[in-house]
Amino acid sequence: MNFLEQRIVQDGEVLPGNVLKINSFLNHQVDPQLMMQIGQTLAQRFQGTDITKVLTCESSGIAPGIMTAYQLGVPMVFARKKRPSTLNDAVYTAPVFSYTKKVNNDIFVEKKFLSKNDKLLIIDDFLAHGEAVKGMVKIAEAAGAQVMGVGVVVAKSFQGGSDWVTSHGLRLETLAQIGSLENGQVHFIH
Amino acid sequence: MNFLEQRIVQDGEVLPGNVLKINSFLNHQVDPQLMMQIGQTLAQRFQGTDITKVLTCESSGIAPGIMTAYQLGVPMVFARKKRPSTLNDAVYTAPVFSYTKKVNNDIFVEKKFLSKNDKLLIIDDFLAHGEAVKGMVKIAEAAGAQVMGVGVVVAKSFQGGSDWVTSHGLRLETLAQIGSLENGQVHFIH
Repeated sequence: MNFLEQRIVQDGEVLPGNVLKINSFLNHQVDPQLMMQIGQTLAQRFQGTDITKVLTCESSGIAPGIMTAYQLGVPMVFARKKRPSTLNDAVYTAPVFSYTKKVNNDIFVEKKFLSKNDKLLIIDDFLAHGEAVKGMVKIAEAAGAQVMGVGVVVAKSFQGGSDWVTSHGLRLETLAQIGSLENGQVHFIH
Repeated sequence: MNFLEQRIVQDGEVLPGNVLKINSFLNHQVDPQLMMQIGQTLAQRFQGTDITKVLTCESSGIAPGIMTAYQLGVPMVFARKKRPSTLNDAVYTAPVFSYTKKVNNDIFVEKKFLSKNDKLLIIDDFLAHGEAVKGMVKIAEAAGAQVMGVGVVVAKSFQGGSDWVTSHGLRLETLAQIGSLENGQVHFIH
């Protein structure tokens, strides 16, 4: 087990409905040292691919996104889930389907922050059904930017998002690939 | 001018309604190297105060919050603006008034992440009317935690939030204190 898998086993909680709750270090309380290690690992895996920008989505993508961007030495853009009052300039937008709420919510990125010269690395905390990643890929495509890959902290491989990414011809890197959460147990795939 | 003030002058935009738009490096696109420098500066200013945790609020507080927490070597907790489906445990909650939408929105922190033994540093990107900081202070008080200070990237001192913090007996540290945005010009206070 790597450092993240160990931490998941130590502090994670499996809830009904295939939910892995790791909000004591990932997405409510955040361990910055762990997050830096995650950023280092993801940046290393994409070394040599000439990434110009990290694209993520608020809120839980920001912590792993900024640490990966810091290590790569490139800016991070986070897609907004609400259109802020100051976002009156031209925006790229894409719908993101929420499985918990069964509705589409739009995400927004101001056009001036993405261009056809960008080589993007898409980062998120969780990859489950892949809806947020699909939305970010759509925004990248609308900008004419190239997606060099997708890096996620945790992939729940049994929920379809991982298959979508790879079948879309995109490279997927993850620090913890989960094959099942059956019987309250975390089963990693190696 | 310090490094942040220089960046504000270089890349900032003053919009009608006393809005300073610096979303090319602070809260939509983020410059991770700048954010690390901000975190270093805020952490240095609170050195020796035995901070145990950084408390911030999603989404724009996360980037400065995690860098400050990284430098202090402590966890960061970010208050949620929506109660996530997995947040079924006991929570502290406080209303935050939105001046743009004229409504109260609640913020949430799971109880287990704050305790009466905590010495908190509250971090945010902007301090304007101070509503988000007031909400975080309320949550800290509900947890019985001690607030050692408030660190913000940019304080718009003319909008009342700075006065509220200091009149509440709290130490305020900021990297850019803005006295006015009149006539589209940024006037810093030193």
